[in-house]
Amino acid sequence: MDLSTPYDPENVFAKILRGDIPAAVIAETDDTLAFMDAFPQTKGHSLVIPKSQATNLLEIGEAPLAALIAETQRIARAVHRALQPDGIRLMQFNGSAAGQSVFHIHFHILPIWADQAPGPHGQGQADPETLSALAEDIRAAL
Amino acid sequence: MDLSTPYDPENVFAKILRGDIPAAVIAETDDTLAFMDAFPQTKGHSLVIPKSQATNLLEIGEAPLAALIAETQRIARAVHRALQPDGIRLMQFNGSAAGQSVFHIHFHILPIWADQAPGPHGQGQADPETLSALAEDIRAAL
Repeated sequence: MDLSTPYDPENVFAKILRGDIPAAVIAETDDTLAFMDAFPQTKGHSLVIPKSQATNLLEIGEAPLAALIAETQRIARAVHRALQPDGIRLMQFNGSAAGQSVFHIHFHILPIWADQAPGPHGQGQADPETLSALAEDIRAAL
Repeated sequence: MDLSTPYDPENVFAKILRGDIPAAVIAETDDTLAFMDAFPQTKGHSLVIPKSQATNLLEIGEAPLAALIAETQRIARAVHRALQPDGIRLMQFNGSAAGQSVFHIHFHILPIWADQAPGPHGQGQADPETLSALAEDIRAAL
């Protein structure tokens, strides 16, 4: 997919924003939504997205991007407090060649433990109850 | 290394900011410096750092973080225009367990080509003249 492909309002994250499909929500602000990745690479793998429509980093406006990174930092701090990983990896993919699979810009927050290699992305869907419990733990640490 | 380790002013990026060691600089603003990664994983692998001292995402203040992501976007757009990769990956590592090797917060901008897997980080040092030429190409596309 080209990096200047138009925004598709039927992408999965647009549907989550509209409430058309469920997600294990950590926090919602005026500008952002944070929720658990349904196909987690590690325990606590979280996503933060803007409410405004933007396919990727090249397309998003400056104000939504500032709000997005501020919320990503707030969620990352809560992930750290709640789960106490050894490290945290932020990742943000632009274009399918780079690993992007949903074409609504998102930051991955990946908690890392020194003795566990992250799994490949999209390997398996997590149990919704497990994700809800993790979202609750992270939300409690905000 | 713990995620709350104090900032060490002798880290490599602090030395680059002070001009004590050289780098292939793409752009300097009041708040940020962008330069080529000396150990690139792909052609055009760039780094953006704040001038303010912060070890990682958990520690940086809101204003320096906003300036950092805005400049990261500006550099990513220029990398895209200059090198025309198929995709772009942003990465930001916190803690050695997550892959952080320099303890001054930085965003990696990794151009991705569909037919080339990125190399491992820190594999080999690039030729300084090659990096300077790439920095010039990216700067010309700002």
